[in-house]
Amino acid sequence: MSAASNAPLRQLQKRVGYTFTDQSLLIAALTHRSAGKSNNERLEFLGDSLVNHVVAIDLYQQFPDATEGQLSRLRAKIVRGSHLAEIALRLDLGAALVLGTGERKSGGRNRHSILADALEALAAAILVDAGFEVAREVLAGWFGPSLETLSLTDERDPKTQLQEWLQGNGHPVPVYEVLAVTGEDHAQEFLVSCKVAPFTDVWEGRGGSRRQAEQDAAARVLEHIEHVRK
Amino acid sequence: MSAASNAPLRQLQKRVGYTFTDQSLLIAALTHRSAGKSNNERLEFLGDSLVNHVVAIDLYQQFPDATEGQLSRLRAKIVRGSHLAEIALRLDLGAALVLGTGERKSGGRNRHSILADALEALAAAILVDAGFEVAREVLAGWFGPSLETLSLTDERDPKTQLQEWLQGNGHPVPVYEVLAVTGEDHAQEFLVSCKVAPFTDVWEGRGGSRRQAEQDAAARVLEHIEHVRK
Repeated sequence: MSAASNAPLRQLQKRVGYTFTDQSLLIAALTHRSAGKSNNERLEFLGDSLVNHVVAIDLYQQFPDATEGQLSRLRAKIVRGSHLAEIALRLDLGAALVLGTGERKSGGRNRHSILADALEALAAAILVDAGFEVAREVLAGWFGPSLETLSLTDERDPKTQLQEWLQGNGHPVPVYEVLAVTGEDHAQEFLVSCKVAPFTDVWEGRGGSRRQAEQDAAARVLEHIEHVRK
Repeated sequence: MSAASNAPLRQLQKRVGYTFTDQSLLIAALTHRSAGKSNNERLEFLGDSLVNHVVAIDLYQQFPDATEGQLSRLRAKIVRGSHLAEIALRLDLGAALVLGTGERKSGGRNRHSILADALEALAAAILVDAGFEVAREVLAGWFGPSLETLSLTDERDPKTQLQEWLQGNGHPVPVYEVLAVTGEDHAQEFLVSCKVAPFTDVWEGRGGSRRQAEQDAAARVLEHIEHVRK
């Protein structure tokens, strides 16, 4: 099959915003592991870090007053699997996926984890084909609409979010404890711990006030929950 | 103080392998949060993703036969805090750090977490000052010697590593269970779960054989342990 003369792939590349010099990279990015040993898993590894970094640059520029914690939480919204799958659906990646028979029959084309992984692999394939700056520009097209909707003000605070998640899942409220207060008066730093019933780990948080440190700890627990559920 | 005429900072930039056009970015990267509100935390957020991505590119090229899981584990060795701190010590970043009085008196210059964070912030400062390709080249100088020592063959397998860690910390051995076997005969995929006594979470792993799937699950638990201890 000559990929270059394949009409559906040509149309896909139009939607994606990039036409490959090496069409085999495009095919590799679309090939799920169920289709065999030569698949998109290595590209997905590379693409995951590319997407994380490009979104970090965009957020760094877009929110000059955001703290590190706020930037992390904004990024988590953009790079979470369900959002990547949304973008993959918008680009209609599903139809072009190369799947094993089993995955094909069981609806793999619409599976969110497969779509999200393929989108990351596609990002890496563009990087390998054309370099960082081109990949960054193409990704700006994918993520731009979502980035525009972000705002620092509509972020519910992490302590509230964590408590809602715990109550929604039938767990008791978290227990915060101040471990240390350091620094001069004008730049005091609080270190707190946060224990959360469903987990055996204990999280720590820092901040210029007890409240800020607790918010920081709660944000870390939320990141863990997001990470584990991914 | 004119940073450009500051001899220690000039020497530091020689060791780092990059001279800043905007010296205020260098100062920002070296300023710990204990020194006040204008510090390196936002740069560290950006630098963390830059380092992860640049190392991913290098490993992707250096190990064309490595699986996604192997690439992840190799990267974890390079980007772990203790290794970043080693590089920061080699560059003698500690002497140039801007710290609050408390951190200065309690030995903050030698604290590994502060050094690792400053190294990430410095990477981002170079990115902001000169763009991705220049930053990538500078980072190649920092990480090159460590990347050269990596090899796929001397990697102890994840199941062995996990068992050793658990036994070393007085915990029972992990429990693996096959959850599903899917795919055609020539491309079967095993899905297994792994339960580990000190954690309430259950991890999953996939692979072309039961053993491979168990290795994959064990690798994910190891990543979690590394993440929590960071």
